[in-house]
Amino acid sequence: MERILTTQLAAHAGEQVVLRGWLHRQRRLSRVAFVVLRDRAGTAQIVVDEGLDLLPETVIEVRGQAVPSEQAPGGVEVHEAQLRVLAQPTAPPPVELHRPEPRESLPVRLDHAQVSLRHPAVRERFKQAARAVAAFRRTLEELEFTEIQSPKIVGAATEGGANVFRVDYFGRDAFLAQSPQLYKQMMVGVFERVFETGPVFRAEPHETGRHLAEYYSLDAELGFIEDHRDVMRVVERCVRAMLTAVGAPVPEQIPVVRFADVRTGSEPDLAPADERRICAEFGELVFVEGFPTAKRAFYTHPGPDPEWSNSFDLLYRGLEIVSGSQRLHRYDDYVAALRARGLDPGPFADYLDAFRWGIPPHGGFALGLERFIAQVAGVSNVREVTLFPRDRTRLRP
Amino acid sequence: MERILTTQLAAHAGEQVVLRGWLHRQRRLSRVAFVVLRDRAGTAQIVVDEGLDLLPETVIEVRGQAVPSEQAPGGVEVHEAQLRVLAQPTAPPPVELHRPEPRESLPVRLDHAQVSLRHPAVRERFKQAARAVAAFRRTLEELEFTEIQSPKIVGAATEGGANVFRVDYFGRDAFLAQSPQLYKQMMVGVFERVFETGPVFRAEPHETGRHLAEYYSLDAELGFIEDHRDVMRVVERCVRAMLTAVGAPVPEQIPVVRFADVRTGSEPDLAPADERRICAEFGELVFVEGFPTAKRAFYTHPGPDPEWSNSFDLLYRGLEIVSGSQRLHRYDDYVAALRARGLDPGPFADYLDAFRWGIPPHGGFALGLERFIAQVAGVSNVREVTLFPRDRTRLRP
Repeated sequence: MERILTTQLAAHAGEQVVLRGWLHRQRRLSRVAFVVLRDRAGTAQIVVDEGLDLLPETVIEVRGQAVPSEQAPGGVEVHEAQLRVLAQPTAPPPVELHRPEPRESLPVRLDHAQVSLRHPAVRERFKQAARAVAAFRRTLEELEFTEIQSPKIVGAATEGGANVFRVDYFGRDAFLAQSPQLYKQMMVGVFERVFETGPVFRAEPHETGRHLAEYYSLDAELGFIEDHRDVMRVVERCVRAMLTAVGAPVPEQIPVVRFADVRTGSEPDLAPADERRICAEFGELVFVEGFPTAKRAFYTHPGPDPEWSNSFDLLYRGLEIVSGSQRLHRYDDYVAALRARGLDPGPFADYLDAFRWGIPPHGGFALGLERFIAQVAGVSNVREVTLFPRDRTRLRP
Repeated sequence: MERILTTQLAAHAGEQVVLRGWLHRQRRLSRVAFVVLRDRAGTAQIVVDEGLDLLPETVIEVRGQAVPSEQAPGGVEVHEAQLRVLAQPTAPPPVELHRPEPRESLPVRLDHAQVSLRHPAVRERFKQAARAVAAFRRTLEELEFTEIQSPKIVGAATEGGANVFRVDYFGRDAFLAQSPQLYKQMMVGVFERVFETGPVFRAEPHETGRHLAEYYSLDAELGFIEDHRDVMRVVERCVRAMLTAVGAPVPEQIPVVRFADVRTGSEPDLAPADERRICAEFGELVFVEGFPTAKRAFYTHPGPDPEWSNSFDLLYRGLEIVSGSQRLHRYDDYVAALRARGLDPGPFADYLDAFRWGIPPHGGFALGLERFIAQVAGVSNVREVTLFPRDRTRLRP
């Protein structure tokens, strides 16, 4: 007989069924015991005469009768169950998985991620992340973007030397890519429109709820644009698809405000408090455009008034989740921009060469997956939505 | 007027059109010149009175009349063209992009990947790679696999210490993940069925056409299997979808042969020559199953006769592109397997813990994207199908 999932039980009421999964919990009453089996889809209640002498998380197969029952979660439970053990734990789990929300502290749950991630509410966040990434890719494929894979081991620390990880590369120094930025720009010359979904690496010195040493970046870049507004239109399309995919509300319109109009005093950037204030005033999703050119990366294209750049952030529920801009596209502009910032053009030689050979006006953006899902889930720490987070103190499991 | 792509030109015959792209080449005749414009979709011929005084790869916009012409590639060319330069190269490209196939040596093309990848035939391989990865993910999503992101910076060199890259992790030693193997197995306990598409890192000492220091691995793992044959069924489904996506022939059946029946003499593994011989005999795609347990990774599940394992490779056109197996799933079996191989269980503690808490019978596989595309394209070196390859001597661009 073919196994069914717990979520298919109701459709099989009155039939013999086979379920497989984990012994999620059991409640023993005087004459009967209720066993909850968890599988990848959900949970189901099994009624047995007496409690099972099995540890939680035992992997079991249950054959029995699917019986409608008003008391059962889902309206159907399993009677006359025959149990078979498929895998026996050697110890009870170090965290409780049957509470509506986990009760253990975050460090304890992260130390035991192998098993704490099995909590249904926690697990659901990662299923949402998978749906969001799929929606991102699908949206860009519909717009004829080509997916690329850029190298994560790079020869030069081009984007800020301080927070880059060093790799021993066959006895030479190499570095972990802090973003696919330079590669995706070069690939505009090949494919016009590219995207990449992959890990990026930052040796972040601060321990905050918003920063990790390794996170998953959704990157896109497109050529033949007029200015950053063309990039924002692509961002909007992706984010709408991602919100729809995770079942979050999608606003009718995403307001666009100018950085100069919403900053605090003469501060050159937005502080976390500013991001919260702007969303409180303008909505869940807000584009902020026109950041000071001097505060953005060297490849950012200035606006008509060169003090302000053709750049933007997208704020979601009070947190920046996307950063993007039009980029410079002329070789001479790059050389001048690097010089103006006191950066040595040497390590950028390969990147600059791409602009020697004709790159159209272009722009792009990056979206941090963990931040996006944290805001969807309403959690304040990205570690809650990262399977195995990496930070200054955490390198395991 | 909205820009159209070169591939849309025929549908606009008789109309005014706007094209944008790169000056791919020009041929000057006595009274006329033919300019070929390349965009992300293809190329189009523009007829002008005299040759353009522009470098190849100049980024241009062309407005003109789409005119049917029997001589034009695609059947339609552009007349009465008005040209606008969108970006001016500063030098001619170091490679020729208009030959049917690139003529430069592979090292020269790799040194100038920023521009050599623009060659239409070369570029097409990477579009195929993107379609293949999309087909892999789509197939597994249909089978209710959940996409995961496992960390690439890991605390222990668990899969062979020799070819692992060392990272300076905030002053501590860390390593680049050689595969998502241990993580995807742990996640079977959470999601039952998982996949990951991402970079893996191997400090490969040899310079061969089949090895890179960084490549893109398509990984999957699934629980509640009977044995490795259940894994092979998923592999077959993925590979069929990938071949269809790239337009390659898909065989009706994929034969399965036993390692013991096809090996050379008493050799414990297949040599490259064996892989070629087996495909010559049995077909383009051949599963080889039942490799010696001692020659496979410690987590491989033995078969009914424990000398031979529940493992398999998939050969495609004479090259192994997939490796997979049923895995051990009991804690005690892992401890015994590590001990039998003289491996210290210490670095595996977090991984082993997952099996303390109940993991069902499971198995999985990994497919190397570059190898797959190399075989599709009929090239003998995976560097031909890697945007920016990394090996012992190559760390740029």
